Amino acid sequence: MYINKLIKPNVYSLSAYEAKEIPCKIKLDANESPYGLSDKALSDLRSLKSQRLFTTLNKYPDPQANNLKKKASKYFGVRLEKILHGNGSDELIYYLITTFGGPVLYPVPTFSMYVIITQALGEEKIEIKLDERFDLNLEKILEAIKKEKPKLIFLSSPNNPTGNCFSTDKILRIIEITSEKSIVLVDEAYQPFASEKGFLPMLDDYKNLVILRTLSKVGLAGLRVGFLIADENIINQVNKVRLPFNINSLSQAIAAIALNDKRALKARIKYIVSERERLYEDMSKIRGIMPYPSEANFILFRVKDSDKAYNELLKRGILVRNMKGVVNGCLRVTVGTPEENRIFIDALKGIINKM
Amino acid sequence: MYINKLIKPNVYSLSAYEAKEIPCKIKLDANESPYGLSDKALSDLRSLKSQRLFTTLNKYPDPQANNLKKKASKYFGVRLEKILHGNGSDELIYYLITTFGGPVLYPVPTFSMYVIITQALGEEKIEIKLDERFDLNLEKILEAIKKEKPKLIFLSSPNNPTGNCFSTDKILRIIEITSEKSIVLVDEAYQPFASEKGFLPMLDDYKNLVILRTLSKVGLAGLRVGFLIADENIINQVNKVRLPFNINSLSQAIAAIALNDKRALKARIKYIVSERERLYEDMSKIRGIMPYPSEANFILFRVKDSDKAYNELLKRGILVRNMKGVVNGCLRVTVGTPEENRIFIDALKGIINKM
Repeated sequence: MYINKLIKPNVYSLSAYEAKEIPCKIKLDANESPYGLSDKALSDLRSLKSQRLFTTLNKYPDPQANNLKKKASKYFGVRLEKILHGNGSDELIYYLITTFGGPVLYPVPTFSMYVIITQALGEEKIEIKLDERFDLNLEKILEAIKKEKPKLIFLSSPNNPTGNCFSTDKILRIIEITSEKSIVLVDEAYQPFASEKGFLPMLDDYKNLVILRTLSKVGLAGLRVGFLIADENIINQVNKVRLPFNINSLSQAIAAIALNDKRALKARIKYIVSERERLYEDMSKIRGIMPYPSEANFILFRVKDSDKAYNELLKRGILVRNMKGVVNGCLRVTVGTPEENRIFIDALKGIINKM
Repeated sequence: MYINKLIKPNVYSLSAYEAKEIPCKIKLDANESPYGLSDKALSDLRSLKSQRLFTTLNKYPDPQANNLKKKASKYFGVRLEKILHGNGSDELIYYLITTFGGPVLYPVPTFSMYVIITQALGEEKIEIKLDERFDLNLEKILEAIKKEKPKLIFLSSPNNPTGNCFSTDKILRIIEITSEKSIVLVDEAYQPFASEKGFLPMLDDYKNLVILRTLSKVGLAGLRVGFLIADENIINQVNKVRLPFNINSLSQAIAAIALNDKRALKARIKYIVSERERLYEDMSKIRGIMPYPSEANFILFRVKDSDKAYNELLKRGILVRNMKGVVNGCLRVTVGTPEENRIFIDALKGIINKM
């Protein structure tokens, strides 16, 4: 096909992100929250809806997403000018790389979109293996920073798929040493589930620190809303490559309503964390299963024949993520409802016994 | 600011797309439809809503947007495999340039996002002035194709902001001559309002033809849904750089419902076209106003002191688009409801009389 010759080589050699819908009864593969909009949010939505939500869809959305950003500003305790809104945090990663270019440095294994978007945009990537405790290999990272001068450094903390937070000291060291030379993105998609506070309080101290937050893990994956939080100078530049109407009217309105019910969001997060702890305990008790401690809403676990375990779970209607090729021998399970977690544990026990 | 040195030069020199919300009573600046969801669509939506629309937002959207694409396939009469879904057609322009790179050739004046996205992605641009009738300057375009070998050619037909369709013969000549060397995008955002059939029927004849359609001009700008329609080989490649969850669940569901009511969509389009003709007649009768014939849902018009006319209209609560710097001396007005158009005509008459 001559078309293939017209395509940029970096795109031609790229594989599309695999996001197939696999039929299942219990979906624990995508780190979604088992809980969606709160009752209060649903009721707020109903009263808004009757007014104008569906009858004004002929008009473009607010390009500045001002109402949404106001609520986000209050929720995160950050000035509105420091917030940029994205069609999911994926889009904000796209924009960051478009704005600053590469090389892009990130540890591996980590969130797969870093490599996919870096390659899609034709930028160079620098991948540094995590150490045996899944923490940052600081020495190697500092070496690579010195030698290869990355423009962007992506640190997902808590990290997906390993579940742990990276050492705060190591992250701070990286931010400090690159101060005027690199932008350091701390991707806090899973931070709401972590025991530590995260990096928002440090935003004013480090001008090259950029924080990514998303609503996808706290009950609103269907809306596609993420936020880039950083110094105003960075926000203004990244905003230039943002498509003007990147978040549709409905997602803007509903996300604003959801953020307004901070109490419910926090309560659900707390509940998921307590379920995660229970799930971890239960998994630890199964001989042949080795779960890794998690600060996120999922648990990575080692199991003897991981392919077989994955397939046997799926036969029972339970979908988890097979981490083959990423963390060999491991599966990743999302924390579900207590009922879902119980069914998962029972299935796992049955499968292990027969292996 | 040291941050400015970290930014790619092409982004640093870029101005963000200006999409400010200007307060007004009658908004005729953005080529939106005055009509949103049909009664049938609203009723379908109500029954879907009660079922599950808002209670499943914790799950990610369908990454393949299969149901939406099925409806689009039926609506456009094109096989599903030839359709790629975008968060508005803006996003699909982004993806096309990411996939094929530059140089990007387009006539000027035209849709402003072509230049903005080309520059945001750091690709070279080739701008060829339209002729005095706002048609393609074929000679100059063929010369530029030969000399500068563009990877992408963007033709908005009907063209925004001029309102006319380019000659079909000229477009076909460009598609034929570049056959294995360039991708030719015919952006049919305004095609529904044109008297000719557009390029969908020619899709099978030209493998380098790519068509862009959007729901933004036919009543659903708030949803952000666009479609790239092309040979499967092209779709598969562009799909690689698409973010997996680029259209949220609500927009997918509601756009599918709207496309399902083809009769209502077509009836509204027909009504807007008849209103456009009436508006054009009325404008032609005003001394000092020169409207250009339009095949779109807006009318470009020349007026003596265009800045003053713009401001005087705004004083009366009517927002149109000032085309200063694009087509000097011209304003662009969107076809509104009969009532809105009448108020606009009356205001215009009053203003012209005092000028």
